[in-house]
Amino acid sequence: MDWLTTAREIFSHDIYATETTGIVIDEAEPGHAVCSFSIDKRHLNAHDRVMGGAIFTLADFAFAIITNLDRPATVGQSSSITYLAAPKGEKVIAEGRLVRSGRRTCFGTVEVRDDTGRQVAFFTGSGMVVDS
Amino acid sequence: MDWLTTAREIFSHDIYATETTGIVIDEAEPGHAVCSFSIDKRHLNAHDRVMGGAIFTLADFAFAIITNLDRPATVGQSSSITYLAAPKGEKVIAEGRLVRSGRRTCFGTVEVRDDTGRQVAFFTGSGMVVDS
Amino acid sequence: MDWLTTAREIFSHDIYATETTGIVIDEAEPGHAVCSFSIDKRHLNAHDRVMGGAIFTLADFAFAIITNLDRPATVGQSSSITYLAAPKGEKVIAEGRLVRSGRRTCFGTVEVRDDTGRQVAFFTGSGMVVDS
Amino acid sequence: MDWLTTAREIFSHDIYATETTGIVIDEAEPGHAVCSFSIDKRHLNAHDRVMGGAIFTLADFAFAIITNLDRPATVGQSSSITYLAAPKGEKVIAEGRLVRSGRRTCFGTVEVRDDTGRQVAFFTGSGMVVDS
Repeated sequence: MDWLTTAREIFSHDIYATETTGIVIDEAEPGHAVCSFSIDKRHLNAHDRVMGGAIFTLADFAFAIITNLDRPATVGQSSSITYLAAPKGEKVIAEGRLVRSGRRTCFGTVEVRDDTGRQVAFFTGSGMVVDS
Repeated sequence: MDWLTTAREIFSHDIYATETTGIVIDEAEPGHAVCSFSIDKRHLNAHDRVMGGAIFTLADFAFAIITNLDRPATVGQSSSITYLAAPKGEKVIAEGRLVRSGRRTCFGTVEVRDDTGRQVAFFTGSGMVVDS
Repeated sequence: MDWLTTAREIFSHDIYATETTGIVIDEAEPGHAVCSFSIDKRHLNAHDRVMGGAIFTLADFAFAIITNLDRPATVGQSSSITYLAAPKGEKVIAEGRLVRSGRRTCFGTVEVRDDTGRQVAFFTGSGMVVDS
Repeated sequence: MDWLTTAREIFSHDIYATETTGIVIDEAEPGHAVCSFSIDKRHLNAHDRVMGGAIFTLADFAFAIITNLDRPATVGQSSSITYLAAPKGEKVIAEGRLVRSGRRTCFGTVEVRDDTGRQVAFFTGSGMVVDS
């Protein structure tokens, strides 16, 4: 089974990301993942823009994939996000990269863009391996 | 009209927070807000825990209230979140406080707990007043 | 020996904080510490303001005290800082509070002010207990 | 005058970075800068490791260069740093990249390594253009 199929099977059980927020996994392999959602009404805030929480959830899901796909079970410990511009276009896309994979901790970055190529947000996350 | 009623009217249009994630506003006044959701299936990840994205969205919504309720329109610029423990109990509750309210920027903190009193997460956010 | 004396003995060996940056410990007890420096030329940037690095170092030192004073040896893992206003007056003062003390990790906040009472910065830090 | 010479002239007045902490600028051009210090006694903490504050100051200085060199005067607004490993070798080196340069705000990342190639820290910073 290839990595993308594996990722889709494992992470389809993250209901908040996949069902509630409608995120799909587009690419997945050790240390790298791309996921996205098509903007619809459920993602909006009072100004008809995609809410920060939806953008964070997308980035956090990419982070969960890169830190768990081929590694021991890992939970997010702390994250930062900076919003660069409101997404336009029809999709929001997050690309995650694992920067460091340690025995107890790991660290990754996620760049969020829309489908017009516009930079939307930059996310960093630290994860901790769950105690066995 | 009191502040809580005002907040509920304004922020009910934040669909991602209120409808998609099911968050309600419990308290709101200048510089202070409490909001919460009752944990259900839509918030869960593959380990049957509330997903980080849902906790962030709750905190970010409290931040949106304290930075917009009695202030010029403000958007989130950057945020950090640290997870302290997985929520137990039936509800997740966020309490936001505006720490600094400037002419161009503002800063607030949000403490997230569950309804057993357990500390769940600590969020900080910087906002920027939207250009007129 | 009281906590303040203990803290001064242990942390005087943090040369970058105490000698290079000139920070002194004003208060220390489990979960709480205050430290400060008197602003002089060595702290300045090209605009004759205290450099962000000096403010961070002060906050980080308060964090080191609250996470190590009565706990197993702990190192900083990730931190965030938001600058609220440039310090005026003669001193910069940081007050740290331990928010959560776990077996493997801990979390604290540090509020930085100047001696006129002006809010200067807000710092958060996550620490990890060093492997034995 | 080339960018590196310009940067060295402008930023030599950041006393905390250049004199107090001993940082030198190795490369500078619009949107990109490298700076470093040679590890000596003044940077150490009680465990004879380079203190987090010194690593942050190095990263923050690279951030100041990339956000000010060919742009309107910009101050740091908020930053995050994650420590990846304690530096070994003789030097600590920071490489900054401007990710987004807007009219009112900007965002950059800084990767910190030692001279053995070991990843030491990852820094993100948001800056705000100073009001004219």
